[in-house]
Amino acid sequence: MAQEALTLLGLGDMGTALARTWLAAGHPVTAWNRTPARAARLTGATTFPTAAEAVAANRLVVACLLDDASVRETLRDADLDGKDVVNLTTSTPDQARELAKWVEDRGARFLAGGIMAVPPMIGNSGYVFYSGSEALFAEHEATLAVPVGTKYVGADAGFAALHDVALLSAMSGAFAGISHAFALVRREDVRPSDFAELLVGWLTAMMPYVHGVAEHLESGDYTKGVVSNLAMQVAGNATLLRTAEEQGVSPELLTPYMNLMAQRLADGHGTEGTTGVIDLLLR
Amino acid sequence: MAQEALTLLGLGDMGTALARTWLAAGHPVTAWNRTPARAARLTGATTFPTAAEAVAANRLVVACLLDDASVRETLRDADLDGKDVVNLTTSTPDQARELAKWVEDRGARFLAGGIMAVPPMIGNSGYVFYSGSEALFAEHEATLAVPVGTKYVGADAGFAALHDVALLSAMSGAFAGISHAFALVRREDVRPSDFAELLVGWLTAMMPYVHGVAEHLESGDYTKGVVSNLAMQVAGNATLLRTAEEQGVSPELLTPYMNLMAQRLADGHGTEGTTGVIDLLLR
Repeated sequence: MAQEALTLLGLGDMGTALARTWLAAGHPVTAWNRTPARAARLTGATTFPTAAEAVAANRLVVACLLDDASVRETLRDADLDGKDVVNLTTSTPDQARELAKWVEDRGARFLAGGIMAVPPMIGNSGYVFYSGSEALFAEHEATLAVPVGTKYVGADAGFAALHDVALLSAMSGAFAGISHAFALVRREDVRPSDFAELLVGWLTAMMPYVHGVAEHLESGDYTKGVVSNLAMQVAGNATLLRTAEEQGVSPELLTPYMNLMAQRLADGHGTEGTTGVIDLLLR
Repeated sequence: MAQEALTLLGLGDMGTALARTWLAAGHPVTAWNRTPARAARLTGATTFPTAAEAVAANRLVVACLLDDASVRETLRDADLDGKDVVNLTTSTPDQARELAKWVEDRGARFLAGGIMAVPPMIGNSGYVFYSGSEALFAEHEATLAVPVGTKYVGADAGFAALHDVALLSAMSGAFAGISHAFALVRREDVRPSDFAELLVGWLTAMMPYVHGVAEHLESGDYTKGVVSNLAMQVAGNATLLRTAEEQGVSPELLTPYMNLMAQRLADGHGTEGTTGVIDLLLR
């Protein structure tokens, strides 16, 4: 069976990496880029001077552009009737929901994607969160899975971005903590690579915490399975802050979380774990 | 060969868990606790009314008390000459260094420990960072390893606490990020346990970042192996903040790290990764 043909809008680093894996797997690719030189460099792809012509060439249209505004601008003059539009451009959940409506109002099905990979991972690892039209996803999953794994997370077009951003946000917090940890040992005779081994082992061993939080949220009982409770942890935070001071490290990456823990404790939840901090974040 | 006898000062949850594993492994344990009732409940241990008497009973003396001040108070009237004192009480690096001097001035060898475990893990998992007298550690390692694994991290008595606090600080940052992530999906139709699976997978997959930071610090080249550079990440932070706003989640756990990233970018380091944030934390 011939591989499915598709149109790819946007040939930045990510779009180019995607196009290459599709082409290598035998998928006919019609490519368009705002700057035509990049499209011309992509060996094996069919190119058109306008996005509208590229969109007309195939039913499956994948956009991998700069931002939400550039997606609308790129698709403005295209006939989307009967198209299957997959948007891999970074967006917020609300932007994805609005774009879904805009695309669907023009007669197309819509699927949003949140890419959990950087360009060098394409073809090897990582995955894409997809949400929106389940029918579109089912019909094109084999093609979408060629460059990078797929995870469909629901009919709400905003869910791909929501999951994407949530995971990146968690990562940002982890990286902040890791930065503080390295700062603490920076002026001491501690080999960074030795310390990295310990840090990775410890953080990996702490991952069951995440499942514990999920259990708390599902049961509503934030004390379930808690060993080191909030009262003990808030007491322990003093040692963390005093150590930062001794080592000449700013506590700014630790204090916001500690303050929320202290607030939750003051609210009378000392026997819980830290799950209640989540409630305090909701405004 | 008979198992080594030891004295354990402090029978809180952790001390009791330690004592039980030593007793179960056949080690004669002399135990003392400020509140005598707890010591009396520990079947199989020899008890004394004063810490000085308990210390006199064995060469190896392990303290697992409330805080640094209580260690000095407990050991004040004891004859430490010729003793091997192992302090598992939570402390800061400087407190450990000062205690080492205080103990050594009284004729004993000193080893500091930082327990990377909670009481239910004792006998099963977790480990203790040790630093200070390498000779003491070498001589008693087999005994110390009975309740929980050991990791010796150097002759500096402060290093056990330093490593302990650094790992707990990193964990605190990770938990802050995880809290923000759960808050983002809290009001949506997302099952927490499904989300937890994705979160654990993602954070685990990101662990090579830690080794990358170590390489940057060791080489001094913060651009090495960087794919998503600081300029790109700072641009991406806008999507994270906008999503938090859409979802009604306070950005307070994310902004301090983002601000340092932006500062490092403004300082002209856009092609680096985020390792430079560590330098900004050092005061």
